[in-house]
Amino acid sequence: MRDLSKDRSLLAINSATVKPWTLEQLVEGCVRAGITGIAPWRDIVQAAGVEKAGNMIRAAGLTVTCYCRAGLFPAADEAGRRAALDDNRRAVDEAAAIGARSLVLIAGGLPKGSKDIAGAWRQVHDGIAALLPHALDAGVPLAIEPLHPMYAADRACVDTLAHANDLCDQLGNGLGLAVDAYHVWWDPDLPRQIARAGKRILTYHVCDWLVPTKDLLLDRGMMGDGIVDIPAIRRLVEAAGYAGPREAEIFSRDNWWKRNGDEDLRTVKKRYATAT
Amino acid sequence: MRDLSKDRSLLAINSATVKPWTLEQLVEGCVRAGITGIAPWRDIVQAAGVEKAGNMIRAAGLTVTCYCRAGLFPAADEAGRRAALDDNRRAVDEAAAIGARSLVLIAGGLPKGSKDIAGAWRQVHDGIAALLPHALDAGVPLAIEPLHPMYAADRACVDTLAHANDLCDQLGNGLGLAVDAYHVWWDPDLPRQIARAGKRILTYHVCDWLVPTKDLLLDRGMMGDGIVDIPAIRRLVEAAGYAGPREAEIFSRDNWWKRNGDEDLRTVKKRYATAT
Repeated sequence: MRDLSKDRSLLAINSATVKPWTLEQLVEGCVRAGITGIAPWRDIVQAAGVEKAGNMIRAAGLTVTCYCRAGLFPAADEAGRRAALDDNRRAVDEAAAIGARSLVLIAGGLPKGSKDIAGAWRQVHDGIAALLPHALDAGVPLAIEPLHPMYAADRACVDTLAHANDLCDQLGNGLGLAVDAYHVWWDPDLPRQIARAGKRILTYHVCDWLVPTKDLLLDRGMMGDGIVDIPAIRRLVEAAGYAGPREAEIFSRDNWWKRNGDEDLRTVKKRYATAT
Repeated sequence: MRDLSKDRSLLAINSATVKPWTLEQLVEGCVRAGITGIAPWRDIVQAAGVEKAGNMIRAAGLTVTCYCRAGLFPAADEAGRRAALDDNRRAVDEAAAIGARSLVLIAGGLPKGSKDIAGAWRQVHDGIAALLPHALDAGVPLAIEPLHPMYAADRACVDTLAHANDLCDQLGNGLGLAVDAYHVWWDPDLPRQIARAGKRILTYHVCDWLVPTKDLLLDRGMMGDGIVDIPAIRRLVEAAGYAGPREAEIFSRDNWWKRNGDEDLRTVKKRYATAT
């Protein structure tokens, strides 16, 4: 097997890593750093204007490794579910407009007031099923990303690769997976489920689990600063056939977000070679 | 099937729910409240003195539904693993001395400096295997408790009932399970794994998942205040053959631990009937 660990063209930056930056700053910063792939979140694309965003990215010669993020299907009533579906269709259109290789979906949590997680699972299934025809028309693959189970209540009730693989089995063509080392590293079923995923893996995210973790959402670590054996997970996804980029996606309110974005990118580049 | 949902004799209090109390206060508080089962942690039993603790509990006519907690097997070197095993043997002896129905084990996390979760899993397996003969001699069943995956790094690398069931399959007689609704509610494999566990379920804990959860360890909710369908999980464990107590174990530094312990027990009793 070709060793992809040092291939710099496979490094991509998720905009959450340099959260304070606008899309323009992200594009310019990556060009300065010699990084060729970006994974922008919707907020900065919408702030720039979708058409302008696409032009800016194409002019800079950057690849959009994925577009983050849509999904969040469960809602308390039919109007809420329809609104979620409409928003997901807009996200597909935005992803197409900026040339994203996939649109990342997170499941969404329990609707307000609900304790029915099985009901939420069904709504996620039905929401993706309803979204798929539009995504297939637009040529945008959907990548369901299982999050860590600590987000099951309020962000994503699909929390294991097994569950995401099941959804792919059920819903078929047009749906794949996003694997994020941070969300799945703890799972004893990981090798089996990554092998099962195979070519379904559309995108692969990295960051690290810090000990201690001070905040459930915003205290993720730079690769190498935590306890995840990230290279071992890379080898699993490569063995499954994935040869795409590794996107650094680091939510870090009290550390990396407070630093200079160019410094963050220099550190990511260094760690890419030594710790992913 | 007999409906156990309202049987007051099946309510037990884990000492973590009234963390500021000594064992003596816990015993007296439960007697005052008409609660017949307690699940003490080692700190308050050791503070009281193990022999005195046993006498106090027996004199009050209380059942010790489980003893919390031992385990924490992985260590960086052989001396550390031996120290952990010695401490686990002492915990077995303490559990026997106070007449506990089981000793709860949590796996332990990654040794300091390690990123090898598979190695930690092996150490947990080997640690329980080494402990079992002593536990069988002492007549103390061991209950491996899978924790929520957010504790995989620093507290418990065994985080699913599937994994705990696998350990029971591998290690056999003397080892069972502790099911805690807080740790397992998110798992799509839950109904299947509880059915698979069957008579292995030695003890059952309840508390609730709050939205938002402000601290990974110390922000658990009173039953009914969160989003877990606790009665649905009770029905699963009952259908699997479990007819034992439901222990309220609520880590709540900034809410319930700050209140009066008697008030906490009154609330637990009320919620036991309406929300478990």
